[in-house]
Amino acid sequence: MLAGNGSDELLAMIFRATLGRGDTVAYPVPTYSLYDTLAAIQEARVLKFPVGRDFAVPLDALARARARLTIVCNPNSPSGTLTPAAKLDELARRLRGRLLVIDEAYADFADENALSLVRRHANVAVVRSLSKSFSLAGMRLGLCFAHPPVIAELLKVKDSYNLSRIALAAGAAALDDAEWMRRNVERVRRTREATEARLRKMGFEVPPSQANFVLARIAGRDMGPIARGLRRAGILVRYFPTPLLRDALRISIGTPSEMAALFRTLKPLVSAQDKPRKARR
Amino acid sequence: MLAGNGSDELLAMIFRATLGRGDTVAYPVPTYSLYDTLAAIQEARVLKFPVGRDFAVPLDALARARARLTIVCNPNSPSGTLTPAAKLDELARRLRGRLLVIDEAYADFADENALSLVRRHANVAVVRSLSKSFSLAGMRLGLCFAHPPVIAELLKVKDSYNLSRIALAAGAAALDDAEWMRRNVERVRRTREATEARLRKMGFEVPPSQANFVLARIAGRDMGPIARGLRRAGILVRYFPTPLLRDALRISIGTPSEMAALFRTLKPLVSAQDKPRKARR
Repeated sequence: MLAGNGSDELLAMIFRATLGRGDTVAYPVPTYSLYDTLAAIQEARVLKFPVGRDFAVPLDALARARARLTIVCNPNSPSGTLTPAAKLDELARRLRGRLLVIDEAYADFADENALSLVRRHANVAVVRSLSKSFSLAGMRLGLCFAHPPVIAELLKVKDSYNLSRIALAAGAAALDDAEWMRRNVERVRRTREATEARLRKMGFEVPPSQANFVLARIAGRDMGPIARGLRRAGILVRYFPTPLLRDALRISIGTPSEMAALFRTLKPLVSAQDKPRKARR
Repeated sequence: MLAGNGSDELLAMIFRATLGRGDTVAYPVPTYSLYDTLAAIQEARVLKFPVGRDFAVPLDALARARARLTIVCNPNSPSGTLTPAAKLDELARRLRGRLLVIDEAYADFADENALSLVRRHANVAVVRSLSKSFSLAGMRLGLCFAHPPVIAELLKVKDSYNLSRIALAAGAAALDDAEWMRRNVERVRRTREATEARLRKMGFEVPPSQANFVLARIAGRDMGPIARGLRRAGILVRYFPTPLLRDALRISIGTPSEMAALFRTLKPLVSAQDKPRKARR
């Protein structure tokens, strides 16, 4: 196990340790956008495999690509959908000799996780974050679990003294209080279910989320105006202005009263047809 | 200006942003050992120029080398000696078009610094640390000053969210209280002068230090046994088992009572001849 200055730093270390110019890295799209940035820094060759129906991760394509580095964010972002651990087990087996990174930033919110694969496969690394389920985003703490030879490679590119003493103390205290985290997760999961149900009632498609956010979509409708309307009311949701995702919003799960405020603002925005604005007089 | 997770992270960013495989990086030796590590990670070609008499930095050789990246630690480690800013000004001028990094981790303890060169030269970056003069080593905070195009290159390789909110708050509060730092520095400088005088009286050569440590040397005498004797007494000093430095110790300046404890243990160790140990009965 190796602690990092946020799981983002651990991902950056993995890219630095694994990829030189022209080496291949494979992951599904859409997924966490940081992977593109890290691949560009390494001048690596990116192999992107589109997710399938219901955002299913293209496991067979990833296995056949046999990239030097394969990453699966699980649950994935922005869909929130989960790939079963048994399928990742098979992917790891097929990728033997190549590193498979499972980015479990949101795993505490899911019904299962793939941490046990680290014991079974020398080529699997699981990355965790204390920023989500432990609510310690401002502290910058992540964890990477992998066999010692993988960790040894990361240590070669690790910044010296990359963790503050305060982050280490806070992280140790947080991990000692996993009960707090589980209560936090239960709250988020309850609110997530209620949010999904309400969004579906409003006409959104919502893939079943196993994360602390949901993806709400109305096929073919550009969500830009709705995202801007929410922003004007001080409500920040994620809008992706890409062909694949412009008809969807990623909505983080807040407290029940925050979600109530979201729906108060969202309803009239969804009901309103997008009209061209009148010219100002 | 760019803040980093310690000045070490800023140096790592500079290496990542500047050097590809085979690119040249030049610095004097001996100096801060991290530069070797960072160069190895980038697979860069290192041009090392030995310091001269009295640990003078070989400015002309560095200028003529015109490496892609040149680094001068000033005051230098482990000698504590200072290169005048006027000489670095000339070096920057001669290196025009190539980046000159001045690592000023210890500059607050010196009579002058080279920060003003950043305004005059587009190719100069000055790196500072809050770990020494501000006593915030555990917080991991460093600063890099350079023209915007240099900072823009560093941002390209910066880890996302590399600073904790607590470090940012602590750093802002520390910089607001520069008066505390100056009083701290004055204490260290007074103790440093007393320490240098006392070491010289004991027979050590001590180059005039402008840092928060001194280098104490007895030409030709291996300091290994003395360093181990100090360690047994719970006093940690730096011993470098290299041909160039094995006859020297780098001693950090502590409180006056810590220095008194050092000298109590050091004196008998220095007086004792290094005798082969008797075989145990």
